[in-house]
Amino acid sequence: MTDQPTELARAFLQDFHHVATIGATDRGGVERQAATDADRQTRDWFTAFARARGWPVEVDGIGNLFATVEFVPGAAAILTGSHLDSQPRGGRFDGAYGVLASLHAAAELQRRVDAGELTPSYNLVVVDWFNEEGSRFPPSIMGSSVYAGLLDRDETLAVRDLAGTTVRDALEEIGYLGTSAGPRELAGYAEVHIEQGRILEREQLELGAVDSSWYTQKIEIDVIGEQSHTGATAMADRRDALVGAARVTLLVRDICAEYPAESLVSSVGQITVEPNSPIVVNSHVHLVADLRANDPAIVQGARDTLMARFQQVADEERLEIVARDFDIRPNRYYPQEGVALQERIAGRLGLGIRRMQTMAGHDSVALNTMTPSVMMFVPSVDGVSHCEREFTKDGDLVNGLAALTEVLAELLTGALDGVAFPGCPPVEAAGDRDA
Amino acid sequence: MTDQPTELARAFLQDFHHVATIGATDRGGVERQAATDADRQTRDWFTAFARARGWPVEVDGIGNLFATVEFVPGAAAILTGSHLDSQPRGGRFDGAYGVLASLHAAAELQRRVDAGELTPSYNLVVVDWFNEEGSRFPPSIMGSSVYAGLLDRDETLAVRDLAGTTVRDALEEIGYLGTSAGPRELAGYAEVHIEQGRILEREQLELGAVDSSWYTQKIEIDVIGEQSHTGATAMADRRDALVGAARVTLLVRDICAEYPAESLVSSVGQITVEPNSPIVVNSHVHLVADLRANDPAIVQGARDTLMARFQQVADEERLEIVARDFDIRPNRYYPQEGVALQERIAGRLGLGIRRMQTMAGHDSVALNTMTPSVMMFVPSVDGVSHCEREFTKDGDLVNGLAALTEVLAELLTGALDGVAFPGCPPVEAAGDRDA
Repeated sequence: MTDQPTELARAFLQDFHHVATIGATDRGGVERQAATDADRQTRDWFTAFARARGWPVEVDGIGNLFATVEFVPGAAAILTGSHLDSQPRGGRFDGAYGVLASLHAAAELQRRVDAGELTPSYNLVVVDWFNEEGSRFPPSIMGSSVYAGLLDRDETLAVRDLAGTTVRDALEEIGYLGTSAGPRELAGYAEVHIEQGRILEREQLELGAVDSSWYTQKIEIDVIGEQSHTGATAMADRRDALVGAARVTLLVRDICAEYPAESLVSSVGQITVEPNSPIVVNSHVHLVADLRANDPAIVQGARDTLMARFQQVADEERLEIVARDFDIRPNRYYPQEGVALQERIAGRLGLGIRRMQTMAGHDSVALNTMTPSVMMFVPSVDGVSHCEREFTKDGDLVNGLAALTEVLAELLTGALDGVAFPGCPPVEAAGDRDA
Repeated sequence: MTDQPTELARAFLQDFHHVATIGATDRGGVERQAATDADRQTRDWFTAFARARGWPVEVDGIGNLFATVEFVPGAAAILTGSHLDSQPRGGRFDGAYGVLASLHAAAELQRRVDAGELTPSYNLVVVDWFNEEGSRFPPSIMGSSVYAGLLDRDETLAVRDLAGTTVRDALEEIGYLGTSAGPRELAGYAEVHIEQGRILEREQLELGAVDSSWYTQKIEIDVIGEQSHTGATAMADRRDALVGAARVTLLVRDICAEYPAESLVSSVGQITVEPNSPIVVNSHVHLVADLRANDPAIVQGARDTLMARFQQVADEERLEIVARDFDIRPNRYYPQEGVALQERIAGRLGLGIRRMQTMAGHDSVALNTMTPSVMMFVPSVDGVSHCEREFTKDGDLVNGLAALTEVLAELLTGALDGVAFPGCPPVEAAGDRDA
């Protein structure tokens, strides 16, 4: 490696660890849910970073934040980025790593262009996608999905958090509801992210080239009983929505044991309970279950089984249970050319790499419906994510930054021109994949 | 009955149905949790009622609101009342009925004294006890328990609701944190309340003379797991606090089936979940379970069994579960003389009456540790309570008002002078009681 990557690494790490102090929790994580004041502070930091380099900044109608490094006036754009929002008490790497790496890769590429080392065919745009996490406002991957035309903007702006605030009001409140359309002519997208699993760590590899995403869906479940007194109501007269919700929660977890180990993952993440008072039998519980598998038939089969079992619980407990599918996301394939590009670059940089799937959703899944997209992983210690002890070593962050910089350099010079997207499933069965 | 009771009934019903409009919900209930603005409005109404009749009003250091009808300067007081706060989406009868009946009974008794029909030995004080429901600030029966010296005032003022507001700040906010001590020399207490059960309705009786309360306790349970990604975390790696909480919720319900039917009632009413996001495995769940039986050995045995089973769940799910007893309330017995007094009055008024127990807690349970107390029930349609469809017929409300008025007239003339309190268990076994 040359001196430049070392300088680049130093500047990147300094900024990365600074941004991790915004919304920092006492246990090493961050709390920066979408359109909160902490989210605004990271956006202000992003904006200052771009403006200091003379990069124009714009915000679109769903709060996505773009900074343009213009190399070729009027040309299409290579996009790169991720998201600065976090889960409640989330980790400091998830999302923020990809945005910080993209900003510093862009600065390095601008240096190369200015030094005559690189002659790009496209402009480079760094993006902070709004609300990838979906913890405050469902669904997740919100900003990039609206940008890609997968979600309706007006309907999305009307989504409310549990306190009743709309996306529109929350974005206006933090000053990040814009009117720009963002770059509309794209020539490629690249995103680097922590793996959030254990495969790279176990195999001692520095990079993962993501070739596909799992099939996922959510189920929204309303359990309706009748409010009564926990002290004065006979047990036989109770129609306890929380008891029904407890049984639903266990069904959602237990069904995974009916499939090959780790071929299906399924949990209830969110629960809202009314009236939720110590001496009242609850009348209404709302649950959100999240089911994922590589094989769509597994998710669909588990979903059908669960629906039948929910009905059985409703009958046995004299409750009403209404369940509704939402946020169904089919398997998505990244273009094979982008995967091969990552493998060539890893070889050049002397980094170990393997192909892998993502079980989690990412903004690149939405972008891959618009433009050939490249998704890159770096290792996660213990594979943990969406928690304060999420961790990736500085050296792994820097390796990913170096690889992203080279990927972007190739994209800027047309490496994925004319590539079909989204990609297609490989000919061999995916069932033997270690993911 | 004379014309006066009819006039009394008309005035009472008009005011009762007016107060039910304060904090009214769209399904016939009320939402007036303690120290909310709706609670303030009912208190302002109470104060205006008292001042219009020249009764001095005072507020003590935990928000209990007293109105004094002075008959004998310097004499001890007969107290009567209940509470104007409600559960979230609660019923309009629970508590409010007792306060409204007490105010109108007091007005009628003042009329009798002024007319020379009654010569009291004591003064009469009507009270609205603060926060009987405990839904916003635990525990329930808060104001009367502080008044009776069963809870420490300073510790109670520091209790916080789920939003972090203290009792002290909430009371100051609505203007009902006072400095009075309230009446300190008492000669008796009487409270009328809806039954919240089905016994009077089933037996077509107008009145229930409460002779004792059930043994009750709560258990506060913390389930601690680890936050992780619902999509990207292997099932084998999840330590899901919500799964643990679901199992705890079902254990708390299911244990009732191990005892004779309806001898034990037990439910989880309150659950708080962190971080409660659709795509995050939850790390922390807090639960409140409520166990009640007439026989203390049943509650104690069920509690011990549950504690052992919680530990088993913790081991199986790789969670930490910490459970703690609180709010233990032994059986309480009302003085037999007060029960007999109610029976005599019912006979005089031509109303059907039976002795019964209360499974629910009431302010009178706390008062009965300070002064001989009388607890009276009127029927509840379908036995439902703590919900919007809680209902008692006007005729039953008026019967209870008539009986309360006569009970208070007797207390004012010394009917329970020198009676020991709290009362003692009857000599015959309580096991054959229909409660």
